[in-house]
Amino acid sequence: MTVDARELQRVLDGRWADVRADVRAQLGTLALNPDPGLSTEEYRELTTANLRLLAESRRPHLGFDPAYGGGGDVGGVVTAFAALGYGDLSLLVKAGVQWGLFGGAVQVLGTSRHHDKHLRAIMDGELLGCFAMTETGHGSDVQHLRTTATYDPAAQEFEIHTPDAGARKDYIGNAARDGRMAVVFAQLITGGTSHGVHALLVPIRAEDGTPMPGVTIGDCGRKAGLNGVDNGRLSFDHVRVPRENLLNHFADVAEDGTYSSPIESSSRRFFTMLGTLVRGRISVAGGAGTATQKALALAIRYGATRRQFADPSTGEEVVVLDYLVHQRKLLPALATTYALHFAQGDLVSDMHDLQSFGEEQASGTDAEELQRDLETRAAGIKAVATWHATATIQTCREACGGAGYLAENLLPQLKADTDVFTTFEGDNTVLLQLVAKTLLSDYARRIGKLDLAGKARFAADLVAGSVAERTGLRAVLRRGDVRDRSYQRWLLVEREEHLLAAAARRMRRALSPGADQFAVFNGAQDHLLVAARAHVDRIVFDAFAAAVDRVDSPAVRGLLDQVRGLHALSVIEADRAFFVEHGYLTPGRAKAATQAVNALCGTLRPHARTLVTAFGIPEAWIDCPLLDGERNPEAPATDPTPSHEEPTDLAAVG
Amino acid sequence: MTVDARELQRVLDGRWADVRADVRAQLGTLALNPDPGLSTEEYRELTTANLRLLAESRRPHLGFDPAYGGGGDVGGVVTAFAALGYGDLSLLVKAGVQWGLFGGAVQVLGTSRHHDKHLRAIMDGELLGCFAMTETGHGSDVQHLRTTATYDPAAQEFEIHTPDAGARKDYIGNAARDGRMAVVFAQLITGGTSHGVHALLVPIRAEDGTPMPGVTIGDCGRKAGLNGVDNGRLSFDHVRVPRENLLNHFADVAEDGTYSSPIESSSRRFFTMLGTLVRGRISVAGGAGTATQKALALAIRYGATRRQFADPSTGEEVVVLDYLVHQRKLLPALATTYALHFAQGDLVSDMHDLQSFGEEQASGTDAEELQRDLETRAAGIKAVATWHATATIQTCREACGGAGYLAENLLPQLKADTDVFTTFEGDNTVLLQLVAKTLLSDYARRIGKLDLAGKARFAADLVAGSVAERTGLRAVLRRGDVRDRSYQRWLLVEREEHLLAAAARRMRRALSPGADQFAVFNGAQDHLLVAARAHVDRIVFDAFAAAVDRVDSPAVRGLLDQVRGLHALSVIEADRAFFVEHGYLTPGRAKAATQAVNALCGTLRPHARTLVTAFGIPEAWIDCPLLDGERNPEAPATDPTPSHEEPTDLAAVG
Repeated sequence: MTVDARELQRVLDGRWADVRADVRAQLGTLALNPDPGLSTEEYRELTTANLRLLAESRRPHLGFDPAYGGGGDVGGVVTAFAALGYGDLSLLVKAGVQWGLFGGAVQVLGTSRHHDKHLRAIMDGELLGCFAMTETGHGSDVQHLRTTATYDPAAQEFEIHTPDAGARKDYIGNAARDGRMAVVFAQLITGGTSHGVHALLVPIRAEDGTPMPGVTIGDCGRKAGLNGVDNGRLSFDHVRVPRENLLNHFADVAEDGTYSSPIESSSRRFFTMLGTLVRGRISVAGGAGTATQKALALAIRYGATRRQFADPSTGEEVVVLDYLVHQRKLLPALATTYALHFAQGDLVSDMHDLQSFGEEQASGTDAEELQRDLETRAAGIKAVATWHATATIQTCREACGGAGYLAENLLPQLKADTDVFTTFEGDNTVLLQLVAKTLLSDYARRIGKLDLAGKARFAADLVAGSVAERTGLRAVLRRGDVRDRSYQRWLLVEREEHLLAAAARRMRRALSPGADQFAVFNGAQDHLLVAARAHVDRIVFDAFAAAVDRVDSPAVRGLLDQVRGLHALSVIEADRAFFVEHGYLTPGRAKAATQAVNALCGTLRPHARTLVTAFGIPEAWIDCPLLDGERNPEAPATDPTPSHEEPTDLAAVG
Repeated sequence: MTVDARELQRVLDGRWADVRADVRAQLGTLALNPDPGLSTEEYRELTTANLRLLAESRRPHLGFDPAYGGGGDVGGVVTAFAALGYGDLSLLVKAGVQWGLFGGAVQVLGTSRHHDKHLRAIMDGELLGCFAMTETGHGSDVQHLRTTATYDPAAQEFEIHTPDAGARKDYIGNAARDGRMAVVFAQLITGGTSHGVHALLVPIRAEDGTPMPGVTIGDCGRKAGLNGVDNGRLSFDHVRVPRENLLNHFADVAEDGTYSSPIESSSRRFFTMLGTLVRGRISVAGGAGTATQKALALAIRYGATRRQFADPSTGEEVVVLDYLVHQRKLLPALATTYALHFAQGDLVSDMHDLQSFGEEQASGTDAEELQRDLETRAAGIKAVATWHATATIQTCREACGGAGYLAENLLPQLKADTDVFTTFEGDNTVLLQLVAKTLLSDYARRIGKLDLAGKARFAADLVAGSVAERTGLRAVLRRGDVRDRSYQRWLLVEREEHLLAAAARRMRRALSPGADQFAVFNGAQDHLLVAARAHVDRIVFDAFAAAVDRVDSPAVRGLLDQVRGLHALSVIEADRAFFVEHGYLTPGRAKAATQAVNALCGTLRPHARTLVTAFGIPEAWIDCPLLDGERNPEAPATDPTPSHEEPTDLAAVG
């Protein structure tokens, strides 16, 4: 059954197919693979120039409030942003800093006084800015940033100050060269009281580029990748800004210094402010996805033409993608890339519906619930997608051997540029911990709502589960076929529930009188992360399954379901120790998972080229010498001489 | 029990402690962390200049025949070479190309006519050369290279020719800029008969640097890393060299074109020639080791000073290396780095004893057996050590967050430079396959030697094993403690034997009449690689255990044995699915392995700094802003305000 790559592409393109088509048409002809020999300064210059071209395309405007000339299409802008990952990741990140982080913060944390003054210049790329959150001493722990913004009612100004070296703003994009203004996150102090972290607009450079008085700007210099982005450091020595520079959507300070906020709890206020910035994380996951797709397209297309070693029977050299181990390196990774693509699509779609401008939105508890779910999913998928990108791009590089190490073949840049994705916009480990915490809270709430009889039943279930585990009963009861979608889902759901229940039991010990809370938490930390990972795996599984079900064409649906199966089985195979240890799989069925992965690799091998073509990567952005073999397919090399390898004397066995 | 890092360093330094001390004294004061902003040309120039400084140090001479002014210390030179991995990997690789590959080939494949003429100039760095083996179309499959060397008896010359684009020599170090001569591997043809791959000396550039007539030289350009090395491409258009340029230690062509060789089988001859080059693989494994050590030293020293998030009880910020998950990222990797260090030490030592000049050496079958074992071990350890380097350096980068992404903190260069180690000097997948093939041959021979009764017993054992597996008898019979060294070894040995026996059974099917040999092999390919990996794991385990036993000081031995245990348990934990599936571990004991890894992480945490100090990395080569926290330890940050995180309502559970 042959599947047309264009049909499959329509499925992958999904809700924002029109935006994707526009981006391909608009940018696909640009040369966005910069010369890898550019100096840092040259690359920064080029990236800034490309940023201005992007602004001229008015694509970034898509994400802003229509009242200010924006397009009001949050999902569209995030989709367009991710597509830059097929081209130049420095440009993607620079655009993300300018419009996603800096512009996004002004949009959602600010009010009309900021919007009126700055939004249009930000959209047009006339006012370039920074998102100055991270400090040298505090990256993940944003709540404990040390920069201060102290209100002076006499002058009606805030004084921004860096109290020590650790409070220096660090790794800030747009800071080293281009930024004129920064959204600075600082502890807001008024009347001697600290109200926690808030954001303020602080001019950092004059028009001519010289630093503003009291502002010290450093340069982070060369990085592993993303060298088109000018990351820098900012320190403030009692720098004064007007009271109005506080981005006051969630809290304000009156002229006399009185603090007010519609959100009473300082903790809830902090998390609400941060929550509005979820778009950054979702965008990073999207960029990781497109970069991974590009790497796989390169490695699979190369693997489908490269030949090495002769088939002993025919003497003909074998195409490397016909080797099982080569398939195992690339095809499960490809299947997972598909799975994450659909999970990401759902995430973007839900964010769009939640954040759209001017439309009727869910409000109150419902909206909070939805926002909370979105943030948790964004954290989880960002972590899983970026780790997947790092591992897959690495594998792709290795699958292309020496050719994959040459800059001309694009893989080195992809690897170097995406490397930081696992630790920026939230360190992955910290993000998964966040997911675990939310899951635990939800779990506790679920149990809390049970009446006494329900709790007793629940406790009995736990005991029964544990007995089933000991006796291998679970596996006996569930004689499913690992290739069945429903059985796969059962496994993933059971794992998630099992890990969560066990984690909850462990964490309860932290509440015993005299317990060392940190020790209890720390002892269970690896367990918590595994539970979070299991949760994300299940969500991704469901997203892929739903995507398959939406497909009309039986041929496309059939192929896609095989890809889905390969993804699911490779997840199960990777953690089969868990399933066997806890009685969810018999050893025999665990081995069957491995065999099924191998079999599906063989089944999907003939479709590998189609599966990567369907990503719709503009050919101009992927063209490189690695793909010469496609254009100039040599006749299969046949070697008339027999293989010189000494045959292994297998006849002697047994 | 406190252990002095210097005592531990003596253990790690091992047999070539004096060479290590010399290298530290001689090079430790040089600044060998080049500015990451260097252009390709600047970096190449610097590397060539450093290469000349190395030659002046006369350290490279160590590896050559004393009859020509060499030091005759093969083990010493490989040890010294690896130590460059603490500094600049471009220099390490450039030195490896010049003295290991080019000089090594002239030494071992050539005879006195080549030695007299070139060895001194090679040692002194006056004659820079290339090792031109790999072609664009054939990397791993060296036997099927297509460059030809056709003998012309009339002129008494060889004609070197590149018949097609795929036969171009590619990725050749020293080719793009510096090399004057190349050892070219080509199919030797005389009297119309091909005798397989042989090596010849071919001048590629005149003194003034212009290419020799008929030689086309290309430049591989920018690479992911190692940009101080000038990799290039060589094509030959009927280039003529004198008959004497054949490196004729293993085969010669007489004036009249008669071919002769002391080794009759062309296959054995080929593998004998290649076998002499085992030093390259061992050196790469060594370089991977030192680079890994440096990355771990950076990440662990940073992790031991960096603080993030407050302990809820004390309000004091927690040192990140105190988090279990941070320990899990770094400490098992550190333990495996120790394990590989000792396995590498054994390898270097055995190679030294086998290859030493002028000493009485084992000969005949024994020598062949030893050489074969050395090659197999070198292949296996090179694969495992370089994959370990890639994964560990990646983890270290991530463990340092944004700081780890900055070039000034050295980790990006380490990652980029070592990345190609997994695919050069033998692609790791191909190398493990080689190991598997040798293991299968040995296995077949072992079984072949059994008499009829022995074979019957063997078959019965296999059946019994299979029954034990089904009934879980193995696990019941072996009620060991996973923390016991003898139990750990039993597990690793059983796994190796089990996988090998099963692989042999599968491969036997290839011999059935009408079997598709490629299909049978390919279907078992993943199994073969796992078997090879299990073999290497067992060898590495044994090397570490033997190293622990050699230590006199009880304190050092005790600490080292805990590191050994962490390594062994992390190997067992990573493959616990296998052990449970095949009845070697009960599910309960598999979980115990995980618990034991966690416990050992805690036990070793206080020694982490000592364990990396003992590598003896010159401080000048590791000094970077990442380590500022050590020099300027801030008082632990205490946060007077209570944590703002909403507590998880755990009380509601159950």
